[in-house]
Amino acid sequence: MGHGTNRVEDMSSPNNGTAATATATAGGETIVEIHSVCLPPKKTAFQKLKKRVADVFFPDDPLQRFRNQTWRNRVILGLQSLFPIFTWGSHYDLKLFRSDVVSGLTIASLAIPQGISYAKLANLPPIVGLYSSFVPPLIYAVLGSSKHLAVGPVSIASLVMGSMLSESVSPTQDPILYLQLAFTSTFFAGLFQASLGLLRLGFLIDFLSKATLVGFTAGAAVIVSLQQLKGLLGIVHFTGKMQFIPVMSSVFNHRSEWSWETIVMGMCFLSILLTTRHISMRKPKLFWISAAAPLASVIISTLVVFLIRSKTHAISYIGHLPKGLNPPSSNMLYFSGAHLALAIKTGIITGILSLTEGIAVGRTFASLKNYQVNGNKEMMAIGFMNMAGSCTSCYVTTGSFSRSAVNYNAGAKTAVSNIVMASAVLVTLLFLMPLFYYTPNVILAVIILTAVIGLIDYQAAYKLWKVDKFDFFTCMCSFFGVLLVSVPLGLAIAVGVSVIKILLHVTRPNTSEFGNIPGTQIYQSLGRYREASRIPGFLILAVESPIYFANSTYLQERILRWTREEETRIKEFNATTLKCIILDMTAVSAIDTSGLEAVFELRRRLEKQSLQLVLVNPVGTVMEKLHKSKIIESLGLSGLYLTVGEAVADLSSTWKANGQP
Amino acid sequence: MGHGTNRVEDMSSPNNGTAATATATAGGETIVEIHSVCLPPKKTAFQKLKKRVADVFFPDDPLQRFRNQTWRNRVILGLQSLFPIFTWGSHYDLKLFRSDVVSGLTIASLAIPQGISYAKLANLPPIVGLYSSFVPPLIYAVLGSSKHLAVGPVSIASLVMGSMLSESVSPTQDPILYLQLAFTSTFFAGLFQASLGLLRLGFLIDFLSKATLVGFTAGAAVIVSLQQLKGLLGIVHFTGKMQFIPVMSSVFNHRSEWSWETIVMGMCFLSILLTTRHISMRKPKLFWISAAAPLASVIISTLVVFLIRSKTHAISYIGHLPKGLNPPSSNMLYFSGAHLALAIKTGIITGILSLTEGIAVGRTFASLKNYQVNGNKEMMAIGFMNMAGSCTSCYVTTGSFSRSAVNYNAGAKTAVSNIVMASAVLVTLLFLMPLFYYTPNVILAVIILTAVIGLIDYQAAYKLWKVDKFDFFTCMCSFFGVLLVSVPLGLAIAVGVSVIKILLHVTRPNTSEFGNIPGTQIYQSLGRYREASRIPGFLILAVESPIYFANSTYLQERILRWTREEETRIKEFNATTLKCIILDMTAVSAIDTSGLEAVFELRRRLEKQSLQLVLVNPVGTVMEKLHKSKIIESLGLSGLYLTVGEAVADLSSTWKANGQP
Repeated sequence: MGHGTNRVEDMSSPNNGTAATATATAGGETIVEIHSVCLPPKKTAFQKLKKRVADVFFPDDPLQRFRNQTWRNRVILGLQSLFPIFTWGSHYDLKLFRSDVVSGLTIASLAIPQGISYAKLANLPPIVGLYSSFVPPLIYAVLGSSKHLAVGPVSIASLVMGSMLSESVSPTQDPILYLQLAFTSTFFAGLFQASLGLLRLGFLIDFLSKATLVGFTAGAAVIVSLQQLKGLLGIVHFTGKMQFIPVMSSVFNHRSEWSWETIVMGMCFLSILLTTRHISMRKPKLFWISAAAPLASVIISTLVVFLIRSKTHAISYIGHLPKGLNPPSSNMLYFSGAHLALAIKTGIITGILSLTEGIAVGRTFASLKNYQVNGNKEMMAIGFMNMAGSCTSCYVTTGSFSRSAVNYNAGAKTAVSNIVMASAVLVTLLFLMPLFYYTPNVILAVIILTAVIGLIDYQAAYKLWKVDKFDFFTCMCSFFGVLLVSVPLGLAIAVGVSVIKILLHVTRPNTSEFGNIPGTQIYQSLGRYREASRIPGFLILAVESPIYFANSTYLQERILRWTREEETRIKEFNATTLKCIILDMTAVSAIDTSGLEAVFELRRRLEKQSLQLVLVNPVGTVMEKLHKSKIIESLGLSGLYLTVGEAVADLSSTWKANGQP
Repeated sequence: MGHGTNRVEDMSSPNNGTAATATATAGGETIVEIHSVCLPPKKTAFQKLKKRVADVFFPDDPLQRFRNQTWRNRVILGLQSLFPIFTWGSHYDLKLFRSDVVSGLTIASLAIPQGISYAKLANLPPIVGLYSSFVPPLIYAVLGSSKHLAVGPVSIASLVMGSMLSESVSPTQDPILYLQLAFTSTFFAGLFQASLGLLRLGFLIDFLSKATLVGFTAGAAVIVSLQQLKGLLGIVHFTGKMQFIPVMSSVFNHRSEWSWETIVMGMCFLSILLTTRHISMRKPKLFWISAAAPLASVIISTLVVFLIRSKTHAISYIGHLPKGLNPPSSNMLYFSGAHLALAIKTGIITGILSLTEGIAVGRTFASLKNYQVNGNKEMMAIGFMNMAGSCTSCYVTTGSFSRSAVNYNAGAKTAVSNIVMASAVLVTLLFLMPLFYYTPNVILAVIILTAVIGLIDYQAAYKLWKVDKFDFFTCMCSFFGVLLVSVPLGLAIAVGVSVIKILLHVTRPNTSEFGNIPGTQIYQSLGRYREASRIPGFLILAVESPIYFANSTYLQERILRWTREEETRIKEFNATTLKCIILDMTAVSAIDTSGLEAVFELRRRLEKQSLQLVLVNPVGTVMEKLHKSKIIESLGLSGLYLTVGEAVADLSSTWKANGQP
């Protein structure tokens, strides 16, 4: 086997990195070009660790911009990356400002009624919703890197906070404690978000897959909609629970409380809002119709209630709201006592959810306008915004999808639109609060309903079903988990299912038999390419996964089963005896010590059956470990090739030269 | 682009499974052969699910043997697969029996002293260790498929049961309850093991990787050794805790109780046993020296204590042991009450551990003699053996590594050696129990010490360090977790770390830039193959992992960063403008809906930069999903190739034909 010498010599000094070419002349017949398989350049354990850490925590290479810069420039770049406002602030002009004023006022008209409504969803006083639409947008304008994100309270986070806190503390019987817990949860949500950003652990939110979120959001939307039956029907005594069954029984057990005046008013405005929403969805240019509709509805319904106030008391209304700016609330943070664990848990869950929404929304609009939103920086911005919010009577806020879409359509150019919106809220807080006295509660329910109906994305679910059944299953798990069990458990189940999917894929990887496409050097799956044909004497298998402890036993057994089946087939068809198993390792992206042992054991067991094992094209890290664990040596001279074609050609010619069939 | 037509036509009717070949003649210069990428044969969702379930639960295709058989044969095959004794029993002869008697008696001489010692390790009466060496081996002989497994109590499972149960119930103050819990745990261990086998969930034990087990076993061995200091030093009042610190402080706080007679005797026998062990390890033929040494030590030390019993009472001895066979204990199973959860938990953990040991041992010796041990069947055998054991005063048993090795070396041929061993234990139980009256406790400690010292496999740990640093880290986690925290937590930490490794690999997969090896159609990593060179105008990237929700954002960003870096490089060197990004998907073994969306989004963003995205060689399932989600269509006519070489050749010739540089 003199032709193999070159290749192995090359391997024993593998750091020269050249794929030496050996030309094998066997039996004077065929000339086969053989390329050796290289080891990757040698690195110390520390270098590898450094690269791995950089890959995990700094995939965006954040320090790259700072290289080859003067110190002055570095300070400026540092300031710009901490406060994106310095990046765009210097070339901000009147034209941009005009666009931002228009869009800012438009989202304010949406933010004010939604703020009041969402606060009620979280069982908080309506005024807290307005407070939360004032301070956080200002902070985001300074720290955030998205130009289109409209910041404020959102439905999902409000619902989750309301449902989690009210399970332990009643918002009606113990309003002060409830408020304390809400602010404390907000603080922890912010702390958690900012820490994820600081520690560059942003990838953790990637574990909430699209499929999980579609199901979760739809489930939460159904829960929110059911809750609105209280306001829509005018029921006074309503269950505090969130699940489907108690809510429905509460609705039908209090039929005597149903108020037809409320129902009529609710239905009227609901149909108006749904119609405007439909129009705007059909023609995005008419976005302002659906953007202005909620505020218009509030004004009209308030007027109606004001005018008929002496005739009927069936329609309940908000009542007195305090005038004035956000009072400080840092003294209300609650860092000890029985409910601290609840506040932390609520904070973490609402933190994750609002982060996921905020970043997804930011990325969506950034991608439309082709600019970058940095995930880790956004996390810090949203985190600091919530921490500051928790000290100024705000609850959890993030970028809202619906308001950001309006902002984008209204032509927002920079985060100044958030400042304009906050100013509008400021004016409202200072002067306009008494006007909301007669605003009926039913209109708030209607506004929430219109907002959350859009969250039930049945088309996305149908697409999941069509493309990937397992993703659809994950989606259903989170939908029914949230709807029937509870919000955090539903979420946990869905994440668990997603992780199990990954593990299952690794535990039972796919292997397939390859054949040659005649006339080419291409080897492809026999099951997929009908004209691909087996090479007599060879069994070519491709393994499509890393070889880990979790699958090493399985793969070993599976490959032996392939061998048995091939030998049965050969007996049946009286074909050439099997002599060699070729493992195409191209798709084996990693191997661990259990995997190495499995390869070694496989070689040993095949050898006992007089079969040769050949590895083809292991990737860099795998090659390195095969080398370190001496498996390459144990495979012998002709046990490693760069391509399947070369392996087949070289081994066949060797057999011919040795006079074997 | 007329040359692309053939390929796409083929794709729109993808089930013909032929890789149509189109020959592109561009500019009359080059002739490029283009193969289309096929879809896998069409399957319904149910067929796919069926295949997936079969892959996960029936990778060994257990029903294959039953096909094409008469009903009578099927019944016989069924009986044989339920009771392997029918397979070998029919051609059992005197010659085999002679071998089995020799090996059976040899392992009995080891099993009797070890049984007594290990029972003490589990804080159980010594006699329970002998009971456990009688019934379970008989049952295993009928149900088990390994020929060399020597069944009985083992050190790790004994230690874990002892440490877990004694944390809640004191074996000295409440011996009856403790015994009840031990039998109940054994029952649940058996139930759990048998269920894993029945439900074909055997792959779950694969999650205890070799690295985890090396660390865990070593940690447990250290704990066991420390516990033996009690017997070795003759201490009477010893801590009930297992961790390093309380044990050591207990040893030195009771220095007054140290008995020099015990220490001298212990040291003598310890050196004898270690020497015999060393001899047998050096020369496997002399296995009988270490096999006979423990029983010989017991006999000699008992004699010594018997002779000097009137002179000193410093050496404590076992005392009275009841004569007679296993009493039934089904009435002692404990299915309600405060400690049930503890019993179940202990059962599951000892069940997993003993299963792992038993199956690993069975596989080791089966592989040496080249026969198959069926994991799921072994689980059922071990499970039923423990369930039966729990009703006949036995605690958790499995195949012991040390005794199986002796069994193998002594020439065992079938499971009859277990029956012979059980018979020897039977004789002992019926007639020889009074002889153990004066057996000193110190000799039991010495026997345990000698057995567990071999479990500290520092060479394996060193090899882990050399080959795979992360596996070494897992190993250390489980070692220190067990040693310093607790047995179940240490195990949980190690499994968690292993799973995180898998997830991390998926979350941050490797991508590398490929280049062409001159004169070939081979494309390989530029970092590894120094002579590989870039193709002007192309950026060829290989993704080495499935594209999942957990990495879709990362991969998208990473590929865009590769593009940016490549463009910077091009500017620097004034090279040909980048026009096309080729993604080699060979190693992308799966994709989910988030991954599809990422590919789609990537294409959109590259298009905005006037860059074309081309996919190469997606595997079957990925191709199917790309097709269903219409991404293939969006990529355009020349967006999909079978090999990188064809993509480069075809696109270059198209550009040339269009007069581009």
